Amino acid sequence: MIIVMKPNSTSKQIAAVVSRVEAVGYIAKLIKGEETTIIGVVGDDRPIDRTQFELLDGVEKTMPVLKPFKLASRDMHPADTFIPLNGHKVGAPKIVIIAGPCSVESRSQIMEAAIAVKEAGATALRGGAFKPRTSPYSFQGMGEEGLELLAEACEATGLPVVTEAMSPEQVPLVARYAEVIQIGARNMQNYALLNAAGESNAKVLLKRGMMSTIEELLMSAEYILAKGNTQVMLCERGIRTFEKYTRNTTDINAVPVLKQLTHLPVILDPSHSTGKWEYVTAIARAGVAAGADGLIVEVHPDPTQAMSDGAQSLKPEKFAQLVRDVRRVAEAVGRK
Amino acid sequence: MIIVMKPNSTSKQIAAVVSRVEAVGYIAKLIKGEETTIIGVVGDDRPIDRTQFELLDGVEKTMPVLKPFKLASRDMHPADTFIPLNGHKVGAPKIVIIAGPCSVESRSQIMEAAIAVKEAGATALRGGAFKPRTSPYSFQGMGEEGLELLAEACEATGLPVVTEAMSPEQVPLVARYAEVIQIGARNMQNYALLNAAGESNAKVLLKRGMMSTIEELLMSAEYILAKGNTQVMLCERGIRTFEKYTRNTTDINAVPVLKQLTHLPVILDPSHSTGKWEYVTAIARAGVAAGADGLIVEVHPDPTQAMSDGAQSLKPEKFAQLVRDVRRVAEAVGRK
Amino acid sequence: MIIVMKPNSTSKQIAAVVSRVEAVGYIAKLIKGEETTIIGVVGDDRPIDRTQFELLDGVEKTMPVLKPFKLASRDMHPADTFIPLNGHKVGAPKIVIIAGPCSVESRSQIMEAAIAVKEAGATALRGGAFKPRTSPYSFQGMGEEGLELLAEACEATGLPVVTEAMSPEQVPLVARYAEVIQIGARNMQNYALLNAAGESNAKVLLKRGMMSTIEELLMSAEYILAKGNTQVMLCERGIRTFEKYTRNTTDINAVPVLKQLTHLPVILDPSHSTGKWEYVTAIARAGVAAGADGLIVEVHPDPTQAMSDGAQSLKPEKFAQLVRDVRRVAEAVGRK
Amino acid sequence: MIIVMKPNSTSKQIAAVVSRVEAVGYIAKLIKGEETTIIGVVGDDRPIDRTQFELLDGVEKTMPVLKPFKLASRDMHPADTFIPLNGHKVGAPKIVIIAGPCSVESRSQIMEAAIAVKEAGATALRGGAFKPRTSPYSFQGMGEEGLELLAEACEATGLPVVTEAMSPEQVPLVARYAEVIQIGARNMQNYALLNAAGESNAKVLLKRGMMSTIEELLMSAEYILAKGNTQVMLCERGIRTFEKYTRNTTDINAVPVLKQLTHLPVILDPSHSTGKWEYVTAIARAGVAAGADGLIVEVHPDPTQAMSDGAQSLKPEKFAQLVRDVRRVAEAVGRK
Repeated sequence: MIIVMKPNSTSKQIAAVVSRVEAVGYIAKLIKGEETTIIGVVGDDRPIDRTQFELLDGVEKTMPVLKPFKLASRDMHPADTFIPLNGHKVGAPKIVIIAGPCSVESRSQIMEAAIAVKEAGATALRGGAFKPRTSPYSFQGMGEEGLELLAEACEATGLPVVTEAMSPEQVPLVARYAEVIQIGARNMQNYALLNAAGESNAKVLLKRGMMSTIEELLMSAEYILAKGNTQVMLCERGIRTFEKYTRNTTDINAVPVLKQLTHLPVILDPSHSTGKWEYVTAIARAGVAAGADGLIVEVHPDPTQAMSDGAQSLKPEKFAQLVRDVRRVAEAVGRK
Repeated sequence: MIIVMKPNSTSKQIAAVVSRVEAVGYIAKLIKGEETTIIGVVGDDRPIDRTQFELLDGVEKTMPVLKPFKLASRDMHPADTFIPLNGHKVGAPKIVIIAGPCSVESRSQIMEAAIAVKEAGATALRGGAFKPRTSPYSFQGMGEEGLELLAEACEATGLPVVTEAMSPEQVPLVARYAEVIQIGARNMQNYALLNAAGESNAKVLLKRGMMSTIEELLMSAEYILAKGNTQVMLCERGIRTFEKYTRNTTDINAVPVLKQLTHLPVILDPSHSTGKWEYVTAIARAGVAAGADGLIVEVHPDPTQAMSDGAQSLKPEKFAQLVRDVRRVAEAVGRK
Repeated sequence: MIIVMKPNSTSKQIAAVVSRVEAVGYIAKLIKGEETTIIGVVGDDRPIDRTQFELLDGVEKTMPVLKPFKLASRDMHPADTFIPLNGHKVGAPKIVIIAGPCSVESRSQIMEAAIAVKEAGATALRGGAFKPRTSPYSFQGMGEEGLELLAEACEATGLPVVTEAMSPEQVPLVARYAEVIQIGARNMQNYALLNAAGESNAKVLLKRGMMSTIEELLMSAEYILAKGNTQVMLCERGIRTFEKYTRNTTDINAVPVLKQLTHLPVILDPSHSTGKWEYVTAIARAGVAAGADGLIVEVHPDPTQAMSDGAQSLKPEKFAQLVRDVRRVAEAVGRK
Repeated sequence: MIIVMKPNSTSKQIAAVVSRVEAVGYIAKLIKGEETTIIGVVGDDRPIDRTQFELLDGVEKTMPVLKPFKLASRDMHPADTFIPLNGHKVGAPKIVIIAGPCSVESRSQIMEAAIAVKEAGATALRGGAFKPRTSPYSFQGMGEEGLELLAEACEATGLPVVTEAMSPEQVPLVARYAEVIQIGARNMQNYALLNAAGESNAKVLLKRGMMSTIEELLMSAEYILAKGNTQVMLCERGIRTFEKYTRNTTDINAVPVLKQLTHLPVILDPSHSTGKWEYVTAIARAGVAAGADGLIVEVHPDPTQAMSDGAQSLKPEKFAQLVRDVRRVAEAVGRK
């Protein structure tokens, strides 16, 4: 950390900051400039609250030097992490595609969806059994019955299941039925849930919160990694901005940024990041062109009858076209 | 809901939309304009997914007409809700002030803080035992031991305790020690937690998520109310914007907006909404001037030693001055 | 426009709104719902201030039905607009690439840049002579001398020039030297400048403001089109959000959205939209994959010596690689 | 500036950065930490592009140390600047209130408004003659005829006029009729206009852009101050966020922040910062409670007939009440 003193700070104030730095176990080194003095704090100062120092007399501001994440960082772990999924490795050159409906609604619906996405070339099946909904009056998901139907669809098609857990106690339950536990955007900073996921053996798909920075996403991954679970995929699913024409704003920059900062695989969710099916294929292509390792896409046998997220769900034939389009882009950027 | 057809939609498309509206149990009424046709859907359409209709041929967009919240709405419950707290009523003309440290750090610290804020005129004591922290390497709170220390401080001073629960299973535990359970900003859409809070008998302080809309805050309150717990206080604690000079941006507009939309009491947290102690008093005054029913303020016996949020914590003497300042503003706007 | 009445509005209030609608020359049509009444206003209500009606007793809100832009809309002009540039047509299947330094700094610098981008395959040369800078102490551009150097570089390479005008009186001056006048992000709502550009014969590259909506961008284009100048290219250059790891957030969604809403060509600026050269190529590829008609890219012979925007400028050899990469993606999505 | 090297940077890379720092005329001082090395750049590095250094091998990032503004800074000019207006001094303890309609619409309208706001206690009259409108189809203001009507209203009531100039060539024209030239939010970074305002003798009311940071606002003020015009008032008028219930989000934090950073007076515009008349008085009170030196408020004799901004305009009797309310709050915070 750097501590910047105010232009008119006194040498007594500077000395007080230095002794405070030393009191908490670090070394202070000074640079006297023309207008002001800065103090460099030597040592791993990640565990302490940097802003404490801003309260000392004569201090103008503090600035972090070290990246706050370690286990998720490419600095500490330069090689890409690969996560096995249905015979593929997420993070390897081949693009993986997770697809399926927003919610499990019935046996016939999930079975039809599973067969359709498998035929189109999907790697895994998504589908929500526990649904986080803004309104208590909206459909809240089928619960464990939904998990059972997902397991049936998995058995019928061979596609592994990706589905959401919304609380720590749901983690073991979901892990019994699904290969990948999704942590949703609204729960990205639900630390009790992150810890539970970190303690499970399941793979984790961690979605970026709609209000969360890239750094915060990596810090949430750090929670899971710090508990010993290294099978974490990160998912960009759009952030909230002032633009209201689309449901969210796809932060496409996050794809190359994450690939640079971390060794974990990066998945793009063009369904939530746009909110309208018309734009899903264009943004799926863009995601792969930008370097994403995979996609997660909402597909419904009949979107006009969907109990949730109908507007952003693709019909099976549109999804099959998406897979073909994405394949060509993947090859153009040296992927498969 | 209103369904707006595209300028060039055909009468066959319009007829198809009308029959779909009728098929899901509503009445469709048409207005033919010069450029386009709109279809009004008559009936309580809150439970259905409005965007489904955007998938039908010829539809341009849909727009909601009804407010999505009911129990939280002043339309359904015009009279202010009052919540008893330490002999006062939150929501009544007298301003309540909840104060204390970010985290419980030790017996002496919480006791000293409790005595100081009580002397300065606080209504209740805040202090975190379970702390949601961005980094797994930061101090995570003292846990149940912290709750016990809070209970001791309550016994010593008579101040009721406000403290956070981070997961559904913590709710009954926290409720044993505290009069008010806080649901933090990061958990505003943790629906498992909202349901647990709704099922408890404790009072709830529900903080607005840092990138949640006013409407979403009211929908989260609706979850608690729908479970039968009507003792909910709403808390504006700053939202995330592009401005980085302050930690968050105080959405002061939310104060009069919430007072108009809902009967629930509104509390402002100027500590988190600014992130710097220098601005806390000015924003506390502004909140009361704008119509807030109360304040929640971070106070620490020695902020330079705080394990979290030091930069935004007031020293006891500054807090005493804040209480005096706020009192004058409260009287100027007809409050106490 | 739709006028939504409050749930408890009286028939007298409804009648008053209806007569007000009629008084300003429109027809009012009512739909009585279960909870509330809505009033549809028939006629082109774009010129009037919709919010006036929100002041009438019993009105809850108003909602627009018609799109506010006309000349820019695909509804009125379904066929793509093509803009000739150096033997190509912007908007046609072939992707155009405009490239060059942020600022013109010297004859040798602009000449070297022009030759390099031409060799790599650029369609046109960019370079700023008048520079909008946040600080009055930063380099403000070479002014007319810079325009002369651009003209020289154009003559030497045959590349047409794209450069910015910052005020109405600069428009004719810039038009003497450049084929395309750029209106920068900070001036997207400088209406005096938009009107001047609309009255000139030059082609216009209109950049989206960093916190302007897609609709506002189209409304600014509408100013230019309404003055009779139809040669307008729209440019997405990143928007301002809470994410600070990159300089801006590329709103990649805006590419397919604009292609759907308008007939005007859409250009992506991955240099400003990321702010760091490492991400420029990935986002350039993504832009083309999402459907952009062209790119505008910052290239400098020696970015470490650039007087502005060094961090986001590509070296010539990196730019040549970008052109090759983009070509493959273009072919993969059926472009050239 | 601080230059942070990457954890694995070599001593050769460090040496190269040091010589580059020295080559541009500064002194480099090193601090070697446990994980990384930082380089402090000694000297006034404001004029150079900091990000250039991020391109050098081994550099991770750069961070500014010095505030970019000088003339606007309280560091350089500790005493408050007072700006005379109608016998008062803006910036002194007495709160000033500028009021009037959004647009000048007719002689009778502006005269009626002027008389009403004068009677209620306003210090100056606002009213737009040149109107920046999102749509080219909306009312664009009466132009010079509007300025003449403002001058008449000034003569009749003695209230000085505050009105907007939208381009450099309008500055002398507006200055002939008005005592204070307003630079609107959309033009906050129209540098040609800022320079023209800096060269005039008129007082300037500089509104914060809806997309601009506090620091950018101060940098735009710096443009005016650097041209020798020191009579600048800053105006917070709400910023654009994801919250859509109100037209903008009042950044109330900006009030105490600006009072701390700069000696220039700070005015709040609660009409634009809320967009709905129901909230204007509450936010006006909040602004004064937070430390604003004045208010600018939209008042119209009949808001339901206003040609622009009707929804946020107060009727004269509501404005008179606002003045009385604000007076009480002003006294409560030691102002007048």
